[in-house]
Amino acid sequence: MIQKLITKIKQVNAPIVVGLDPMLNYIPQHIKEKAFAEFGETPAGAAEAVWQFNKEIIDNVYDLIPAVKPQIAMYEQFGVEGIKAFQKTVDYCHEKDLVVIGDIKRGDIGSTSAAYAAGHLGKTVIGSKCYSTFNEDFVTVNPYLGTDGVKPFVDVCREEKKGLFILVKTSNPSSGEFQDRIADGRPLYELVAEKVAEWGSECMSDTYSYIGAVVGATYPEIGKSLRKVMPKSFILVPGYGAQGGKGADLVHYFNEDGLGAIVNSSRGIIAAYKQEKYVSFGEINFAEASRAAVADMAADINGALENAK
Amino acid sequence: MIQKLITKIKQVNAPIVVGLDPMLNYIPQHIKEKAFAEFGETPAGAAEAVWQFNKEIIDNVYDLIPAVKPQIAMYEQFGVEGIKAFQKTVDYCHEKDLVVIGDIKRGDIGSTSAAYAAGHLGKTVIGSKCYSTFNEDFVTVNPYLGTDGVKPFVDVCREEKKGLFILVKTSNPSSGEFQDRIADGRPLYELVAEKVAEWGSECMSDTYSYIGAVVGATYPEIGKSLRKVMPKSFILVPGYGAQGGKGADLVHYFNEDGLGAIVNSSRGIIAAYKQEKYVSFGEINFAEASRAAVADMAADINGALENAK
Repeated sequence: MIQKLITKIKQVNAPIVVGLDPMLNYIPQHIKEKAFAEFGETPAGAAEAVWQFNKEIIDNVYDLIPAVKPQIAMYEQFGVEGIKAFQKTVDYCHEKDLVVIGDIKRGDIGSTSAAYAAGHLGKTVIGSKCYSTFNEDFVTVNPYLGTDGVKPFVDVCREEKKGLFILVKTSNPSSGEFQDRIADGRPLYELVAEKVAEWGSECMSDTYSYIGAVVGATYPEIGKSLRKVMPKSFILVPGYGAQGGKGADLVHYFNEDGLGAIVNSSRGIIAAYKQEKYVSFGEINFAEASRAAVADMAADINGALENAK
Repeated sequence: MIQKLITKIKQVNAPIVVGLDPMLNYIPQHIKEKAFAEFGETPAGAAEAVWQFNKEIIDNVYDLIPAVKPQIAMYEQFGVEGIKAFQKTVDYCHEKDLVVIGDIKRGDIGSTSAAYAAGHLGKTVIGSKCYSTFNEDFVTVNPYLGTDGVKPFVDVCREEKKGLFILVKTSNPSSGEFQDRIADGRPLYELVAEKVAEWGSECMSDTYSYIGAVVGATYPEIGKSLRKVMPKSFILVPGYGAQGGKGADLVHYFNEDGLGAIVNSSRGIIAAYKQEKYVSFGEINFAEASRAAVADMAADINGALENAK
């Protein structure tokens, strides 16, 4: 799957991923009204609004991007109905041949991690049958529980040729509280990054590993140093746009081959129509505003990579 | 909700929680056969088997225990149908007046953590309506992202009088890989425990905080030292029984008032009928074996606490 991601990045010339994190207040009024008219102001109504919103955005941007990253929390908050909308979104993105990164940040131990891994990336065995349940291509994983927690995911990735992005240094302001603690003379995130490289060495494609890392756009110096710690790992970079990251900050997250990183924007793309810059599209044409924002983001990052050569 | 947990622990005289982690291979053949006959070897069939298994166990143990801890991974692996069984289990435990600890180990940042907190503990706003979606009483939370990740959960707990158990030191063999790293002269888990005490100080009931911690039964010396770092926090203790922890190891997880800890057993209770000790119950009477195992566990822990006086 890492090979598919790389091929698609080259094809569309855009190392970017669109975060499908549909908060209800991002969704235009006309979509909510229609969904609520049909299903009421209920979880089913919210899930329908989320799904219609996602679909229109996907239809308008799928040819410009290699991958999407649905954030499961935004679906899970609506319970069973929300999870249905998550599944529909994943399936529809596959129909459009997009790589799907499930932003689930799961992490547990032993058989519990194995259950998450089977449900999201692998196959669940029921009697004599096998099911690919959620069937994402990559998921994000939390490393706090150590190798016992991550290994069951790695095993499924090796089996299914799927991939992970393991939280190393997150984009939020307080990420340093634990992640930056100096242990054995080095920050914790660096020790985690070393483990990512180690786990990843067991799951190599041609040049890159199936096992990648999450490093926030908001800490460019750290991104630069971690690039060297995990040379074969793709870095998923959240925090671009709304959280403050810019293309010029991100050039060192990439390797010299121009690969090795994929930059996420969520709100900046899916709620682009609310920004001054794209307001002329109007709420009704929200998905065209998203398309323009995707093009601008790709140009910003490609321009920065070009300048850095 | 911490007050309800304390009242119930005193009422049944058992500081224990039953982990509802129903792997399919724990479930007796007759239950699976019936569920598969009705729904096929499908996610719906698996979810039905899980639900019938849980229900029979709950019916047989609810009067002996204060709380249950469903592990969402074991449901989530079956997708939408699994999540339905999770919801049914939570709702049924509430009918039986049990405190429900959702073992979800979620953790993200800002609005994403807020969505998890709303969906699992609080209320989700849809148009002019409010819904308590999953409606657990407590959830487990992963602290790797720092205060930004935990705060949205704490805020909902303060509002709804619900609670958290934050991962501090987990029970698995490799938990030390990151959690034991020495930073500023102290292990990381101790720094996390201090934060738990700090976050908890904002959410106090009479004597205990709504904000608790997870500390594995498999590290009794660490449990003893962390008890002092977080004197007002309840400790949820996994790793009893199948993972190796015994009652005698756990006395220092409790405060002198005999409270402050709640010990979980999952496999040891729900799959008790597979153990030598309870094999005479037979597979058909699996839930009675669970009842006997609950009584034995309570006696083991209460005996140890009595001996330590």
